[in-house]
Amino acid sequence: MVVVMRSQANDADVDKVVKAISEVGGDAFVSRGKNQTIIGLVGDVTQFTELPLHAFPGVEDVIRVSKPYKLVSNDAHPRPSTVWVGDVPIGRDTMTLIAGPCAVETEEQTEGACRMAVEAGAKILRGGAYKPRTSPYAFQGLGEPGLDIIHAVARDLDMPFVTEVVTTADVETVAAKADMLQVGARNMQNFQLLKEVGMAGKPVLLKRGLTATIDEWIMAAEYIAHTGNLQVVLCERGIRTYEPATRNTLDVSAVPVAQSLTHLPVIIDPSHSGGKRELVMPLIKAGIAVGADGIIVDVHPRPEVALCDGPQALVKDDIVQLRETVVRYAEAAERTLPTSDTPRREGAWGRSAAG
Amino acid sequence: MVVVMRSQANDADVDKVVKAISEVGGDAFVSRGKNQTIIGLVGDVTQFTELPLHAFPGVEDVIRVSKPYKLVSNDAHPRPSTVWVGDVPIGRDTMTLIAGPCAVETEEQTEGACRMAVEAGAKILRGGAYKPRTSPYAFQGLGEPGLDIIHAVARDLDMPFVTEVVTTADVETVAAKADMLQVGARNMQNFQLLKEVGMAGKPVLLKRGLTATIDEWIMAAEYIAHTGNLQVVLCERGIRTYEPATRNTLDVSAVPVAQSLTHLPVIIDPSHSGGKRELVMPLIKAGIAVGADGIIVDVHPRPEVALCDGPQALVKDDIVQLRETVVRYAEAAERTLPTSDTPRREGAWGRSAAG
Amino acid sequence: MVVVMRSQANDADVDKVVKAISEVGGDAFVSRGKNQTIIGLVGDVTQFTELPLHAFPGVEDVIRVSKPYKLVSNDAHPRPSTVWVGDVPIGRDTMTLIAGPCAVETEEQTEGACRMAVEAGAKILRGGAYKPRTSPYAFQGLGEPGLDIIHAVARDLDMPFVTEVVTTADVETVAAKADMLQVGARNMQNFQLLKEVGMAGKPVLLKRGLTATIDEWIMAAEYIAHTGNLQVVLCERGIRTYEPATRNTLDVSAVPVAQSLTHLPVIIDPSHSGGKRELVMPLIKAGIAVGADGIIVDVHPRPEVALCDGPQALVKDDIVQLRETVVRYAEAAERTLPTSDTPRREGAWGRSAAG
Amino acid sequence: MVVVMRSQANDADVDKVVKAISEVGGDAFVSRGKNQTIIGLVGDVTQFTELPLHAFPGVEDVIRVSKPYKLVSNDAHPRPSTVWVGDVPIGRDTMTLIAGPCAVETEEQTEGACRMAVEAGAKILRGGAYKPRTSPYAFQGLGEPGLDIIHAVARDLDMPFVTEVVTTADVETVAAKADMLQVGARNMQNFQLLKEVGMAGKPVLLKRGLTATIDEWIMAAEYIAHTGNLQVVLCERGIRTYEPATRNTLDVSAVPVAQSLTHLPVIIDPSHSGGKRELVMPLIKAGIAVGADGIIVDVHPRPEVALCDGPQALVKDDIVQLRETVVRYAEAAERTLPTSDTPRREGAWGRSAAG
Repeated sequence: MVVVMRSQANDADVDKVVKAISEVGGDAFVSRGKNQTIIGLVGDVTQFTELPLHAFPGVEDVIRVSKPYKLVSNDAHPRPSTVWVGDVPIGRDTMTLIAGPCAVETEEQTEGACRMAVEAGAKILRGGAYKPRTSPYAFQGLGEPGLDIIHAVARDLDMPFVTEVVTTADVETVAAKADMLQVGARNMQNFQLLKEVGMAGKPVLLKRGLTATIDEWIMAAEYIAHTGNLQVVLCERGIRTYEPATRNTLDVSAVPVAQSLTHLPVIIDPSHSGGKRELVMPLIKAGIAVGADGIIVDVHPRPEVALCDGPQALVKDDIVQLRETVVRYAEAAERTLPTSDTPRREGAWGRSAAG
Repeated sequence: MVVVMRSQANDADVDKVVKAISEVGGDAFVSRGKNQTIIGLVGDVTQFTELPLHAFPGVEDVIRVSKPYKLVSNDAHPRPSTVWVGDVPIGRDTMTLIAGPCAVETEEQTEGACRMAVEAGAKILRGGAYKPRTSPYAFQGLGEPGLDIIHAVARDLDMPFVTEVVTTADVETVAAKADMLQVGARNMQNFQLLKEVGMAGKPVLLKRGLTATIDEWIMAAEYIAHTGNLQVVLCERGIRTYEPATRNTLDVSAVPVAQSLTHLPVIIDPSHSGGKRELVMPLIKAGIAVGADGIIVDVHPRPEVALCDGPQALVKDDIVQLRETVVRYAEAAERTLPTSDTPRREGAWGRSAAG
Repeated sequence: MVVVMRSQANDADVDKVVKAISEVGGDAFVSRGKNQTIIGLVGDVTQFTELPLHAFPGVEDVIRVSKPYKLVSNDAHPRPSTVWVGDVPIGRDTMTLIAGPCAVETEEQTEGACRMAVEAGAKILRGGAYKPRTSPYAFQGLGEPGLDIIHAVARDLDMPFVTEVVTTADVETVAAKADMLQVGARNMQNFQLLKEVGMAGKPVLLKRGLTATIDEWIMAAEYIAHTGNLQVVLCERGIRTYEPATRNTLDVSAVPVAQSLTHLPVIIDPSHSGGKRELVMPLIKAGIAVGADGIIVDVHPRPEVALCDGPQALVKDDIVQLRETVVRYAEAAERTLPTSDTPRREGAWGRSAAG
Repeated sequence: MVVVMRSQANDADVDKVVKAISEVGGDAFVSRGKNQTIIGLVGDVTQFTELPLHAFPGVEDVIRVSKPYKLVSNDAHPRPSTVWVGDVPIGRDTMTLIAGPCAVETEEQTEGACRMAVEAGAKILRGGAYKPRTSPYAFQGLGEPGLDIIHAVARDLDMPFVTEVVTTADVETVAAKADMLQVGARNMQNFQLLKEVGMAGKPVLLKRGLTATIDEWIMAAEYIAHTGNLQVVLCERGIRTYEPATRNTLDVSAVPVAQSLTHLPVIIDPSHSGGKRELVMPLIKAGIAVGADGIIVDVHPRPEVALCDGPQALVKDDIVQLRETVVRYAEAAERTLPTSDTPRREGAWGRSAAG
């Protein structure tokens, strides 16, 4: 860290900072300029972060120059992790497609959507039983019966599935059936939920908050890792900007940036960022090209009757193109698609290669 | 609502929309232009919102023109509400100061900060026992012992207090002691928490999410109101923008805008938006001037040892200025300050004038 | 357009709007609901836009539902345009690489960078002689001598080049030598410059403003088109968001969105958005994959001595990878690269296929 | 400045930075930590800014800790400046009201609006003859005839006036008649215009760009100051955020922040930020309360026929309230209003107290 002193700060002010740092076991190097003094802090940053240096007399600014996270940092694990969801890997060498309905509505719709997902080449299913909705008057998801539906369909198809959990009270129920727990964008800083989801021991799909910086997103992953669970997959799903033409702005740069800072896999969600069906395919291509380790996409057999986010779901006519697009761009990106040849690992549901 | 058809849409597409609307009991008026057809929807909007009109063939856009909320709308209650916290009102005629420590750290610090609050003219105390922190390595609050400290100090001073609740599991514990429950910015769309906080029956201080639109913020209030609890006070605390000079950008316009849409009181938090002590006083002035029904502010007896947000707390030297500033600007704004002359209402802790 | 009346508006207010519309030759369809009346306006929108409907009594909101631009709209030209820069096309079937130094510094540096560009497969050169800089103390470009340098190098290599013009006074000088004029992000709403650049008759590269909506960007193109010059190429170069990890956030969605609204080619600039060398290659891939009609990229023989934006320039070691990346992703995107087989068109410098 | 080295950087990389700094006459202090080395740079920052340190091997980040501007910095002039427009001061002790029509449309409308301004207590008139408009089809202002109208009205009323100049070609014409030149938000980084406006020698009203950081805004003022003209007044007029309820978000914090960094006066424009008449008065109050040195506001005798921005203009019925509001809040803010008692300074049109 660097402490920048005000131009009016005196020697006593500088000494106070130096003393505080040495008291927590750090070293402070003072650069005294004509107009301004800068103090470089060296040592265990966790200690310094807790010091209220900003409130010290004569301090103008405190600038952090090192990463605030440890367990998920690639300083700790220089080799990228692979997170296994059931027997399906998500990691730097592969390109894993996750697909299914946004919300579980009926058995028929869920099965229809999941069969579309399989046809498109998805290796992991998705389907929401608990839906966080902006309006109390909107469809809130089927809850546990919905969980049972997606669970039954996934087991029939012999595939793992991911589903969102929106409150700590449901973590145990969901973790008993789902192969991966999703923490949604709105809950990215619901710290108690992060902790309990982490302790459930299943892989976690952590969506980036609508307005979270990349650092805050990775810190949320650190909360999960802090419970001992390193099976975290980061998911970029668009950020809130001033641009009204799209629901959110997909921040593709976040993929290489996050990959350069952590050892965790990073995937993208093109459905919720664009908010329009016609943007989904271009954003899938952009996501794979920019280096995403996976794609999570909504499909729906009959979007015109969907209870949630129908306008952005891919439909039956899109499935062949989706499959071919993923194959073509994964090849350009020198990624392999997990296939039946990928060694099935018995009993490896939710095992992290990082462990 | 208005449905805008694509220029290529045909009569069958238009008929499909009209039919769907009439099936849910609404009326659809078709405006047919040379290039474009527009359909005006009239009736109970709640019905239309649920229809996936965006996914209908030929539909280009669906524009909402009426408010998505009901219970907190001033269409429902044209007269502004007063929310009573203990025997202290927050409403359109008064200017209520809430002050105290950001976080409860020790008995001594809490008592010191609360005495500063009283001296400054605060009528409600604040103090956080459960703190949502970006880093798992940062001070997370004292939890229940912290709640006991602020409770004891408040009772000693015979004042009501507000404190944050960060997870559903703590609602009951906190509601048993606090006079007002705060839902923080990061939890504004933690819908399960909104519901349970609402059901606790105490007044609620609902902070605006860092990146929430005013409509989303009011919809979060509607979640609480939907549980039958209309004692909600909205709190603007700064939004996330591209500007790095301030921690957040205090959106003062949000005060008159929210006041024109709902009957709920709206207050501002100048401490967490500016992020710097020297901005707190100017922002308090701006907040009262723009028409806020109250101000919530951090004070700390010794910010240089604060465990949380020390740099933005007002200190002892600021207290006289704070008191005088509130008096002077409340007068300019033609507001009265709740005083000992305000009729004490026995047993009225948490009673809403809107009820 | 749609006019939304306030709930308190009376019949006279509605009539006033209807009358004003019919006076400018439009039709107004009234949808009268219980709580709210909506008026759909049909006819020539240009007329309505000029009416101060927002200020009419009883009017709550005026919503535009049709495009505000005409000449660059794909309603006018449903077939995408190809803009020719010299004998090099930029359009929907091809993927055109533009490369060169950010700023012209010396003959040697410019020639070195341009040779790197050729080696990478660029068909158009870039190089700035006039640089808009945030600080008056920063290098402002060589001006006319710089223009002469890039002109000489381009002619030596028998290639067209694009260069920025920052003020109306320089338009004639620059247009006399350059094959394409660039309007930078900061000047996107410098309307007088747009007009004079348009009248110069050369193809124009129009960068999106840091904070421009897609609609505002296309309206800026309409200003150029309004002078009779339809040879406009739109360039997405990143928008300003709250995220500090990247200089700007490359809005890849803007490419398909703009392509769905206008007939103009749309390219991306990965150098200025990411602001870091390691992000350039991933963003080039994302840009081609999302459907960009071209890429414009900075290269520098010795970035460690660059006078402008050195950190984001590709270097010699990147050139082979750049060439191969463009080839591989253009193939995945089913685009052809303009080659020597593309029929050379004598005297076609700056001829638009849209004409 | 502070240079942060990558963890992999070696001694040679560090030496290279130190050497480069000493070559331009600066001192470099090296803080060597276990994981990271930080180099504090001390000396004349203008030299360092030009060094492409970001592109040096082993450099991770370069952090500026001192202000990039000099002439407008309050390090240079610790005492706040007063800018005189005609014989009217704008500075820290006074609260100066500027009012008039957004655009000059007709003699009658201009005179009507200016008389309203006088009645409201304005000491400087405003009125735009050259209007930057998003659409080429919108009213572009009357140009020179419009300038003549506002000039004649102002002289009749014996008051100074400010008007916008949008292109370098018009600077001379406008400066010959106007008492203060306005550079609009869209032109804030039109650097050539800044230079020529500066050289015209008249006071300049510099609006903040829609998306400009406070630092960039002050740097734009530095461009003007660099021509030798220190008579610059900064004007906050709302920034672009994600919030759709207001046209722009008025950043009131920018007032105290800019006042703490420069010696220039800072005013606010409540008309263009809110975009709605009902927000103008609350924002005027907030602006005065937060410490603005002046307010610039649109008034219109008949906004329902306004050719530009009618919805946000104050009308005749608002005038008494405007005058009383300014008086009441200026008093709360301990500011005086310039009156006829303020010593008239013969021949002092456009004289800066900072000179």
